[in-house]
Amino acid sequence: MIAGIVGAGVIGGGWAARFALMGWDVCIFDPSDGAKKRFEAVYANACDALPGLYEYALPEPGQITWCDSLEEAVAHAQWVQESTPEQLAQKHSVLNAIQTHCRADAIVASSTSGFKPSDLQKSSDKPEQIIVAHPFNPVYLLPLVETVGDPSTCDKAKTLLQGIGMEPLHVAQEIDAHIADRFLEAVWREALWLVNDGIADTETIDNAIRYGFGLRWAQMGLFETYRLAGGDAGMAHFIAQFGPALQWPWTKLMDVPELTPALVDAIASQSDAQSGHYSIRELERIRDDNLVSIMRALKPRQYGAGALLKAVDETLKNKEAVFHDELLVTVHRVIPIDWIDYNGHMNESRYAQVFSDAADTVLQLAGADEAYVASGGSFFTVDCHIQYRQETHVGEAVRCLTAVAPMDGKKLRLKHEMRRAGDETLLATAEQLLVHVDLNTRKSSNPPQHIVDAIKGLNPSC
Amino acid sequence: MIAGIVGAGVIGGGWAARFALMGWDVCIFDPSDGAKKRFEAVYANACDALPGLYEYALPEPGQITWCDSLEEAVAHAQWVQESTPEQLAQKHSVLNAIQTHCRADAIVASSTSGFKPSDLQKSSDKPEQIIVAHPFNPVYLLPLVETVGDPSTCDKAKTLLQGIGMEPLHVAQEIDAHIADRFLEAVWREALWLVNDGIADTETIDNAIRYGFGLRWAQMGLFETYRLAGGDAGMAHFIAQFGPALQWPWTKLMDVPELTPALVDAIASQSDAQSGHYSIRELERIRDDNLVSIMRALKPRQYGAGALLKAVDETLKNKEAVFHDELLVTVHRVIPIDWIDYNGHMNESRYAQVFSDAADTVLQLAGADEAYVASGGSFFTVDCHIQYRQETHVGEAVRCLTAVAPMDGKKLRLKHEMRRAGDETLLATAEQLLVHVDLNTRKSSNPPQHIVDAIKGLNPSC
Repeated sequence: MIAGIVGAGVIGGGWAARFALMGWDVCIFDPSDGAKKRFEAVYANACDALPGLYEYALPEPGQITWCDSLEEAVAHAQWVQESTPEQLAQKHSVLNAIQTHCRADAIVASSTSGFKPSDLQKSSDKPEQIIVAHPFNPVYLLPLVETVGDPSTCDKAKTLLQGIGMEPLHVAQEIDAHIADRFLEAVWREALWLVNDGIADTETIDNAIRYGFGLRWAQMGLFETYRLAGGDAGMAHFIAQFGPALQWPWTKLMDVPELTPALVDAIASQSDAQSGHYSIRELERIRDDNLVSIMRALKPRQYGAGALLKAVDETLKNKEAVFHDELLVTVHRVIPIDWIDYNGHMNESRYAQVFSDAADTVLQLAGADEAYVASGGSFFTVDCHIQYRQETHVGEAVRCLTAVAPMDGKKLRLKHEMRRAGDETLLATAEQLLVHVDLNTRKSSNPPQHIVDAIKGLNPSC
Repeated sequence: MIAGIVGAGVIGGGWAARFALMGWDVCIFDPSDGAKKRFEAVYANACDALPGLYEYALPEPGQITWCDSLEEAVAHAQWVQESTPEQLAQKHSVLNAIQTHCRADAIVASSTSGFKPSDLQKSSDKPEQIIVAHPFNPVYLLPLVETVGDPSTCDKAKTLLQGIGMEPLHVAQEIDAHIADRFLEAVWREALWLVNDGIADTETIDNAIRYGFGLRWAQMGLFETYRLAGGDAGMAHFIAQFGPALQWPWTKLMDVPELTPALVDAIASQSDAQSGHYSIRELERIRDDNLVSIMRALKPRQYGAGALLKAVDETLKNKEAVFHDELLVTVHRVIPIDWIDYNGHMNESRYAQVFSDAADTVLQLAGADEAYVASGGSFFTVDCHIQYRQETHVGEAVRCLTAVAPMDGKKLRLKHEMRRAGDETLLATAEQLLVHVDLNTRKSSNPPQHIVDAIKGLNPSC
């Protein structure tokens, strides 16, 4: 399959990268200065990010060809994507050239954020070939693409777009800016007012989004979230409850539709069709599991809500060695939802995670902490033997008790027991061998004496 | 510490649950019918979700007491949270009663979505004690709380709120609906128009949010995302480029502030203060790593963008056994960013994940697939011995090659080699023992003959 890319900036380049990484050959035409260099930066980002989304290897990347003419770029393409600046006259002339040179059965799609298909098609004698396929930056990661135009062309487009990992939303009726950008514009306008009036600065506004409703919207969107606010009484109840606020000055943007019974019915029945197969209690669990998973995913990145969780973790962890039955307490935690697999219990790899975290506690208490790693020393695990004794379930509190052997040259041997907190049921054991490494050479090396001594101090029998 | 909770619906109950799970004693007053039962549902949700956010155990939960009077609920509290309906006269009388009976040094906070502190304080002779602390549902998970009111009371509130895992955003100047709800209202109004005009139904609107900008906003918010769209030229360039669209009919909500040089400067310099310590390239990497992590976190939940990824995974995986050097190819994938630890390489537990996934491939090819699990049979790992040979890094393609021994009664033995794809460097080996189980008893049992036969078929030497 061949994609013809006309205009390869952030958006067109994102399309090109996604097509190529999903196995399409890509022919690019972009005569602007520095276009190729800019594209290469986008493509490098895409190569770093997109393949990591999947649990399986992608097909071999397609070939990327820079073309000297628009004709060459579009001649053999099954899909032509136009991503030139938002100037209607220019788009007309580009689309005209594309239709002159492309295959009769090609789909010609425009990335336009704002123009309607009827705007784009004005000078075309084959208007049904031209659709809007409006993506979102970064195009190589975000699945959303809004399709607008001839239903049968959009239908054909749907299969091709899903084949490159995107999810087309067909907009039933053309409208300026389609759907998503209308929301972005509404929020943008309100945000400009808040900055303009000195209510909040840009960082406060971003935090107001990403610590709150941004997390809700990343998984459920607007209506499904509000369905939950309506509770068992449903969406009509929510609207009855919050409808009056529409008349209050809660935004600078005050033009609102009248909440006629017909509109309330339409929303309530659409919401039933969308989410009615779940009870409110089920939706709450889904929402909460999603939120926990998203926030936890941001934790290792130390970004947004994840950075906040990390700060709380710092306050919760043992700063001093705590012993139990001559063993070091190295983990004490609750099993989170993202550690559970299709058997309904903690995946085997997360036992390994518990033992990895247990080793980290040993290392931190021994002074091989973040600062030590930054200074160029660390420990790597070279061998781990886990014996699984009992299933472990979400929400259970577990502890890990660790016997720390004195350093044997470069080697550190740990024996762990993972127990259910409370009844002390043995859940798993592990024998783990780590070696001290010099991070400059990534090779094993003897640890400094202060760490040797500190490790000895973690074993009460020494 | 003691929190007094006045009004324990979804919001007040969420506060109570968060305080209790973070170790505060909680005294609740809510005389409405069924309040206790409703709270218990909220508390059950909170117990299921909140502790899983952290890598360490929370303190022992505080005691929850249902009080017969408001006086009893607030008398000893350091923090009193009012979450009664949005009726100003009622709030005045409740806040008045709270201030009559609470400690002089208590913080009295209202959950109001819309009212300003000056509205709430009107009948109070100690107005500085009353602040707005506006949380977001689910209160026990989302960190955001908007604080508005006397700066020194809000300052004192900040420490206490951070202690229960929340992040207070202080709103510099009071305004109806504070900050976040103004955005929610703007989007809600635009969404009502889109449904009203038949452009999109509720599900299309939710998908337009959660497959696109919802994912961006969950981690960066609005301005930092747009900073990226401005590229190296920065935020002022972005506004120059997209400012004109403010005059276009891209929303029904058309009241917009004038983009004066002063406003553009304010936004650009606030954005520099917020994000200027990162280059655009760095911010792009942060954004992409966050997006990959968030979408991957939703994959096991099979929700939102995660469900889309799962569908692509299905198209990528081997449906038939593929062999290499007499070994079954059980994994072929790229190492994603969320598998990397502080040493800059794949965490040891993710090797275990690769081997767990390898075993799943064996099981699926042998007919012990999702349908089989649903029918009541599965395999559990009871022993795994991993030897780590080489570091593995983000973005590297790896393969796992597996020797599948014939079933030995209930036992299945697998020997895995994990190799870097391309140069075939051996990265790790594992010997893994699984047993067949009856999921009804969760005990080991003999597998059916068709699985025994199919497993034999996965070993070319048999």
